[in-house]
Amino acid sequence: MKYILILLFTGIIANAQMQTTQLDLMPWPQNINLTEGTFVLTKNFKVNITGNPNPRIFIGATNFIRRLDGRTGLFLEQDFITQINKSPDAELQINCVRNGKIEINEDESYQLTITSNKISINATNDLGALHGLETLLQLIQNNSTSYYFPAVEISDSPRFTWRGLMIDAARHFQPVDVIKRNLDAMASMKMNVFHWHLADDQGWRIQLKNHPKLTEIASDGNFYTQEEIKSIVKYADERGILVIPEIDVPGHASALLTAYPEIGSKVVEGKMTYEVQRNSGIFNATLDPTNPKTYEILSSIFDGVCPLFPSNYFHIGGDENNGKEWNANPAIQKFKQDNNLVNNHDLQTYFNMKLIPMLKKHNKKLMGWEEIMTENMSKDAIIHAWRGTNEGQEAGGALIKAAKSGYNTVLSNGYYIDLMLGIESHYLNDPLPKKIILSPEEKARVLGGEAAMWSELVTPLNIDSRIWPRTAAIAERLWSNEELKDMKSLRKRLKTISFRLEELGITHIRNKDVILRNISNNQDTRVLNDFSNLCEPLKNYKRNGGGKKYRMHSPLTLFADACNADASEAYDFEIAVNNYLENKSLENQKIVSNFYRKWIAMDADLISLSTNAPLIQPLLPLSKSLSDVSKQLLLIMDKNEKVNPKLMADLLEKCNARSSADVELAVLVSLKKLIEKTKI
Amino acid sequence: MKYILILLFTGIIANAQMQTTQLDLMPWPQNINLTEGTFVLTKNFKVNITGNPNPRIFIGATNFIRRLDGRTGLFLEQDFITQINKSPDAELQINCVRNGKIEINEDESYQLTITSNKISINATNDLGALHGLETLLQLIQNNSTSYYFPAVEISDSPRFTWRGLMIDAARHFQPVDVIKRNLDAMASMKMNVFHWHLADDQGWRIQLKNHPKLTEIASDGNFYTQEEIKSIVKYADERGILVIPEIDVPGHASALLTAYPEIGSKVVEGKMTYEVQRNSGIFNATLDPTNPKTYEILSSIFDGVCPLFPSNYFHIGGDENNGKEWNANPAIQKFKQDNNLVNNHDLQTYFNMKLIPMLKKHNKKLMGWEEIMTENMSKDAIIHAWRGTNEGQEAGGALIKAAKSGYNTVLSNGYYIDLMLGIESHYLNDPLPKKIILSPEEKARVLGGEAAMWSELVTPLNIDSRIWPRTAAIAERLWSNEELKDMKSLRKRLKTISFRLEELGITHIRNKDVILRNISNNQDTRVLNDFSNLCEPLKNYKRNGGGKKYRMHSPLTLFADACNADASEAYDFEIAVNNYLENKSLENQKIVSNFYRKWIAMDADLISLSTNAPLIQPLLPLSKSLSDVSKQLLLIMDKNEKVNPKLMADLLEKCNARSSADVELAVLVSLKKLIEKTKI
Repeated sequence: MKYILILLFTGIIANAQMQTTQLDLMPWPQNINLTEGTFVLTKNFKVNITGNPNPRIFIGATNFIRRLDGRTGLFLEQDFITQINKSPDAELQINCVRNGKIEINEDESYQLTITSNKISINATNDLGALHGLETLLQLIQNNSTSYYFPAVEISDSPRFTWRGLMIDAARHFQPVDVIKRNLDAMASMKMNVFHWHLADDQGWRIQLKNHPKLTEIASDGNFYTQEEIKSIVKYADERGILVIPEIDVPGHASALLTAYPEIGSKVVEGKMTYEVQRNSGIFNATLDPTNPKTYEILSSIFDGVCPLFPSNYFHIGGDENNGKEWNANPAIQKFKQDNNLVNNHDLQTYFNMKLIPMLKKHNKKLMGWEEIMTENMSKDAIIHAWRGTNEGQEAGGALIKAAKSGYNTVLSNGYYIDLMLGIESHYLNDPLPKKIILSPEEKARVLGGEAAMWSELVTPLNIDSRIWPRTAAIAERLWSNEELKDMKSLRKRLKTISFRLEELGITHIRNKDVILRNISNNQDTRVLNDFSNLCEPLKNYKRNGGGKKYRMHSPLTLFADACNADASEAYDFEIAVNNYLENKSLENQKIVSNFYRKWIAMDADLISLSTNAPLIQPLLPLSKSLSDVSKQLLLIMDKNEKVNPKLMADLLEKCNARSSADVELAVLVSLKKLIEKTKI
Repeated sequence: MKYILILLFTGIIANAQMQTTQLDLMPWPQNINLTEGTFVLTKNFKVNITGNPNPRIFIGATNFIRRLDGRTGLFLEQDFITQINKSPDAELQINCVRNGKIEINEDESYQLTITSNKISINATNDLGALHGLETLLQLIQNNSTSYYFPAVEISDSPRFTWRGLMIDAARHFQPVDVIKRNLDAMASMKMNVFHWHLADDQGWRIQLKNHPKLTEIASDGNFYTQEEIKSIVKYADERGILVIPEIDVPGHASALLTAYPEIGSKVVEGKMTYEVQRNSGIFNATLDPTNPKTYEILSSIFDGVCPLFPSNYFHIGGDENNGKEWNANPAIQKFKQDNNLVNNHDLQTYFNMKLIPMLKKHNKKLMGWEEIMTENMSKDAIIHAWRGTNEGQEAGGALIKAAKSGYNTVLSNGYYIDLMLGIESHYLNDPLPKKIILSPEEKARVLGGEAAMWSELVTPLNIDSRIWPRTAAIAERLWSNEELKDMKSLRKRLKTISFRLEELGITHIRNKDVILRNISNNQDTRVLNDFSNLCEPLKNYKRNGGGKKYRMHSPLTLFADACNADASEAYDFEIAVNNYLENKSLENQKIVSNFYRKWIAMDADLISLSTNAPLIQPLLPLSKSLSDVSKQLLLIMDKNEKVNPKLMADLLEKCNARSSADVELAVLVSLKKLIEKTKI
């Protein structure tokens, strides 16, 4: 009887107010406790700041007020927040004990308490307080006429200290505004490391006063000025984000060697030349590790780059050196023998070790992709694990090996968002999976992870749609409790998070429409949009196999650029199929067959649209294949007949064929499952 | 018989190929002659450049190739165009005789000839060639599978030499990317003057190394660095656009005086202070023209500003000095008496004349708003005419007066796009209306016009939708033949032009959706969008009467920000009403009554949507009023009854009431017309 009463009581509370499952928070806080009541927002709502924070909290609090106002249209009275304790009666009180330092293992915790008439954010420093403001913005609820916060107690802190996003600005240059809006989005997901890939075979993107040739010759005019770099570093700092520059050496060096061919490893007769690459792929251009001039130039380049970045880390790349130029160069082979360097790995270690003092001079430690982890590598280096089964390695293996070998390490294997894989594969990819047994010391070396946005196929128009909202799932994996694994909850929350990212200027939704309008030639885009919701771009780099189809100036305004991983209709169809397989009710059958009807009509509409839109032509074979299968399945369902298995296999094969539109039918898996399980 | 044959022959040609009315060109070329055939685009299409152009043509031609490729998805092979005569066999040959100079009265003409296998653009200089490339991009046609150009001969040149857009970056700061995308759009409309309003009561936006206080104290951190200014000037130059900076003095000076209160005219006891304004409106803050220090500081400010801008003109504002501080200051009054300055106009002329040598030192002539045109003003100045009937002046009167008085002059009266008036009012506003009789010499002094985008109510989110596509109509007025006045043709062509502006990054369509998604709280936006298409923001500054409702930090993410002048459904309804009034057929009646049915359903849908979206509440009264009128009119139409005139008047009155959503029903004019004419 006691239990029943308690259950009833709990039920009443739950009905009377919110449950945490109604909240669309991301990353999910470590501890959250809904209490009774609500805090109703009015135009008099103000913020006050106390304690000894870094002034970045003033910018953060002012931005918070503007975002809150833009979202609610309340005409909040407070304008710029620039001083400590300027509004002591404010309803939101933020207190920070001290100035936050943007570095690894800094305290980023905060406590957020909302009662019906007061909100407080308490944090050790401004970095935690900024996280608290982001949580607060995510807590806003509304009824039909007003906005309010639920009463709540939250205490929160990150599971991992390194929660990063890498953007490759070399393959396709990404202008300042693209970087800044992504820094805003990162901050909203409590991410704190921006890894900036600034040089590769396709371009050198950072202006150096002492090496003007690099941008003059090897950037096609697309680079960040020193002032722009500073402005981005400052912008990141204001949002609690560390910026790690990457200058990729000794491989990926075509651009560097275009400016300084004299330090390349190629054997040529006459004048050595390199050129900026226009294709994707792995190229041979590699610095000569036996040439003293190589180190002279690199040291001087680092002297130019390092002072621009306050961070204590510097990423030297070090990946994918294919060794071809080294192997073909007799002088380099002789150098190896003379110096007892058994193989190219040893030679690369020799090279890498030379860089350490150049960076140490600027108080920076070396970070590199996992290939730098060779026997004699300094334990001061951070190992960036990236290879997995695609590269013939154990997934995340380098990370564990690094931690066990005494290196600090960061995981990107499993977080390559340019592979266009489904969100589940990223979300469930844990830097410290339970099956791995590490000592507490070893565990502490696993700093966290980084989503990696390689830019072979992204421009300012479509990059946001590749990064967001998927990176929010990675951000949650790196911040929140490891037990959080509910895909349904993730998907539900992401719908809101995705929409809210527009507030920060992220363009993933709006620019999809721009691409579809172009494809449709300014006709109605609804059917194109419907079709895009059941297609996904080819995965695992199949869209640009061999790096040949898309050069760096090829159009990325195509249907595949409007489509995305995690096609929404594929998910809806999967649910419909699963429901039907569980219970073959007429109702469930109708839901499934309505998809078929929709897809048949879609094909007809696309054909009609295509008469005035050449860019729709490449989609028609795929759409026809889906329509043909749908017609057959409808026939079978309606007439309860068995189908010719050969015919069905042929039709499915066509659905599976490589489409010249560079997309695949995301509904195909569920279609096959349905056909197999129902033995039709 | 001869005539009939000729007519038939013409008809055959016209059927076999395009007619110019099918082309969506803007601004319309001076001479266009469609010839026989088409030029079909393939991936091998290349551009070659010959002659002696300024290198800006390389950037222009490269951008042309990228835009063409993005639009067509053809994977064009050509990458960066950086040299003269690099592809002598290219199908598009561009020849420029000489280097173009970006200055007034420069030759901007071009000839464009397309045959079935060759395209040529011939121009005196690169400026004309750039215009030719824009025309070429507008000429692209398509069938269901391919893209082609119609064979054509075009010779083209501008009617006016000054075709400008002013952007006010002071009221709401507009970051670099906003300016750059608008420069792209301007170039696509063959506009060639960007007038940059850089200082006003609400902020000082240009960093000066010799006056750091200005941005430190009076910008709220929102300003252009010197490098950003240079980068924008360079970007404009590459697009054939002259940049004219404006530093508004002696009025509109709150920001300047916040940094340098010692040169203000205010009479105070103790320390003089001014502050950056947060509201709109006309403020008292005015420089003291009797204080030598005023000229010292201004001269030094001009020394900082002038070298950043290569243009020969410098805009000193000079408008809306209300004289209050001068009148209240006994020392200033005494100075006037001592110097025989009869009134404040004389005093302002005294002030303005002092600026001339400061600018001359930098080889710049003074330009100012029409208030500077006083008796003793130097004839070297350019008079910028802006006042009209709203300000109690004859529309465009100052322009004519200036031309007759010997001044070069530019028209903005009639081109104030922030008034949110219909496009017709701007398009038909001719700088040289036929009724005005001027000598050829006087006519030559009318340099052209400028669209004026004052920014009290625009942010980076909504500014593009205020400028575009409407400014394209102004661009056509300033470029094309004066006889071009067909509104139907304009509207038809604008539909395509508006869509194509997205290619250049203009956000007017995509950001409308962002605003609607925020208002709807991430629900389906279709009904909101429908409603937005029949509403227009309040006109003639009524949205922010007295400058009090919207402060500089107020939300501009509201329904009025999603709406625009020239509501599309208002135009459709107007046509339906006119057709019905001409011919009361059942069919025409049905078209009209379908609008009523739609509006009634819309109201219900909006109410339903509003249960989870507080920002929809302010729209409901207006929507209900329209629905109520529609119900009555439907009743009358269906039952052929007369209505109670009092009831109808009351309902219409409600439709006309000031809406708290700050919009008005754009369909109301046609509704009233229909009711009146049908005497229902």
